[in-house]
Amino acid sequence: MEDFELSGNLDLAQNFVDSIKSGRFLFSFVISYTETSEIPGITFAGADKDSIQFTPPADAEYLHYGYCKTIDKIPMTPDGKPTPGILTKTALESASISHLTINAGSKITPQLPFIESGLPFGKNISVEDAMSDSIVSRAVEYGQILGRSLASLTDCLMIGECIPGGTTTALALLKALDFDAKVSSSIPDNPVELKNQIVSSALERIDSEHPYSIVAKIGDPMIPFVAGMLCSASSVSKVMLAGGTQMAAVLAFASKIGFNEENTAIGTTSYITNDKSANFSELVQDIADIPIISVDPGMKNSKFSGLKAFSEGFAKEGVGAGGSIISSMIKTGNNSETFLNLVEKEYQRLFT
Amino acid sequence: MEDFELSGNLDLAQNFVDSIKSGRFLFSFVISYTETSEIPGITFAGADKDSIQFTPPADAEYLHYGYCKTIDKIPMTPDGKPTPGILTKTALESASISHLTINAGSKITPQLPFIESGLPFGKNISVEDAMSDSIVSRAVEYGQILGRSLASLTDCLMIGECIPGGTTTALALLKALDFDAKVSSSIPDNPVELKNQIVSSALERIDSEHPYSIVAKIGDPMIPFVAGMLCSASSVSKVMLAGGTQMAAVLAFASKIGFNEENTAIGTTSYITNDKSANFSELVQDIADIPIISVDPGMKNSKFSGLKAFSEGFAKEGVGAGGSIISSMIKTGNNSETFLNLVEKEYQRLFT
Repeated sequence: MEDFELSGNLDLAQNFVDSIKSGRFLFSFVISYTETSEIPGITFAGADKDSIQFTPPADAEYLHYGYCKTIDKIPMTPDGKPTPGILTKTALESASISHLTINAGSKITPQLPFIESGLPFGKNISVEDAMSDSIVSRAVEYGQILGRSLASLTDCLMIGECIPGGTTTALALLKALDFDAKVSSSIPDNPVELKNQIVSSALERIDSEHPYSIVAKIGDPMIPFVAGMLCSASSVSKVMLAGGTQMAAVLAFASKIGFNEENTAIGTTSYITNDKSANFSELVQDIADIPIISVDPGMKNSKFSGLKAFSEGFAKEGVGAGGSIISSMIKTGNNSETFLNLVEKEYQRLFT
Repeated sequence: MEDFELSGNLDLAQNFVDSIKSGRFLFSFVISYTETSEIPGITFAGADKDSIQFTPPADAEYLHYGYCKTIDKIPMTPDGKPTPGILTKTALESASISHLTINAGSKITPQLPFIESGLPFGKNISVEDAMSDSIVSRAVEYGQILGRSLASLTDCLMIGECIPGGTTTALALLKALDFDAKVSSSIPDNPVELKNQIVSSALERIDSEHPYSIVAKIGDPMIPFVAGMLCSASSVSKVMLAGGTQMAAVLAFASKIGFNEENTAIGTTSYITNDKSANFSELVQDIADIPIISVDPGMKNSKFSGLKAFSEGFAKEGVGAGGSIISSMIKTGNNSETFLNLVEKEYQRLFT
């Protein structure tokens, strides 16, 4: 476990890792969408403005097929750096961990069987409410239903997400719930000013302290849905929120509706926990007394610039990469060197 | 196990039952639709003509919530006899077996999270092809994807279905594949002549021996989808096809694309295996060398006429009732007397 760094509740962290070692894992991949992602300069999760909406289904397709159906190539940044899904796919496959895709408001549905929640996508929070209160209620309720079902089928339910623009809605929710959040970004030169400006104008619309009303006004559909999943699933099995900033927002909202801290951990990459422009570990500890498991995916040693880029701040996290790598290493005993090797093979398969 | 009757491959039957005793079960409920159900007199799966299309989602909702959202009451026959889902729900709940709903061409989607295949509903085979060959290919492919995923999460994957009018499309497929089928019905006075007439006109359109082409012309979307599930799932875990005639049709189609017989069983009620107007056990043995497990749900001893009706030929099977009862009894050790008791409680909850 030399490649892991544990923080937060350390007793629970060791217990969490020990208790899932010999168990079954299931990776659930929640795709969603917020029109906030259409604000120029807010996200790199897509080769250009028009392709951002295809990133969530394309990531799901890539995880499953090894190629995409909705778009020609795998999702990448405007300058061609690949989706963190490449880390997730390698992690899950090398450990034979199965996965299911869940649509919680993606604008485009993926071309594979997926779990449908029937939720609409979120609106642009810089100009209007993300969704209605009743959509939030349904997101929480359906998340709870699904979380219970999936948790009963596994010993450790991992939940990852893909929602371009989601760090901005996450930041808004965290601020609205009074957490001192400085969030990470898919862009190395984190567009903090732009995000803060959007968040400020969104926060002005808040007129109630009810968490459902708050997330309806300034959040996105992924947040209440995954919080609902966590809430029910953590009463049945271990749950690993696989992600960075967005999962901190899920945790913040879930802390308002209640969940079992003893069965919950957040798993992410060291690119998130070491991000100086953000304050991830402090933020999570501020929200909940749960373990934070961080893994160094080892990409700084890659011979490919497209992989090295992850260690340089591009798409530091996403598609549940960190949590998937952690679970994969726990299950297989692989270290980051072996993992890098496998990722490089997958990279070569894709790009040469 | 005194309430079970084993037939077909008896060695495999005992092995099947023994190997799932201490394992995990998952019930997958596949809902679908064929416009063939709109032919007057063909099905009792709905209180009237207009409500037939709501029966599949309503059964899914009832299984989950204990009440329906899409319609006011639970699905029933025109004269008020309840859905066999009442048996399924009682069986699954009493054994804490979790379930997932899968939409494989239902006209109406259920109001709960479900797995979406994106398949269209089937057309009326008395007048036109049920679907295109490419839809059949997608049904098989998506079924395979899902079957693999679900089987990896359990030791015994049960597959049940709800497709009103489905015994007619099942009959057509069985005849087209040259099996001597006399199929059961949701109606005690099985409208055999009407069914045979529909089937004859449908068979005339067949112009190829390719099984994909045949099922496209005279089947329904459920058949290739569930066959795809069986095909991949049976290489990973035990699979119990929970149903009667429709599952015989699935088995017939699956035998053309290949599946693992050693991991497969068909589980149904004695109301099906004892149905003199049909020839279920012979038919299944003709198709595949697998175990047939039949259970007497014990409804003939019920004090409620609505439950007694199941033993009198109304909705002899459906919503995977037989297979669910079998799995439930294997897991809990309950016999049919205890089971009847539990069903009567559920019946009282619903109707008094």
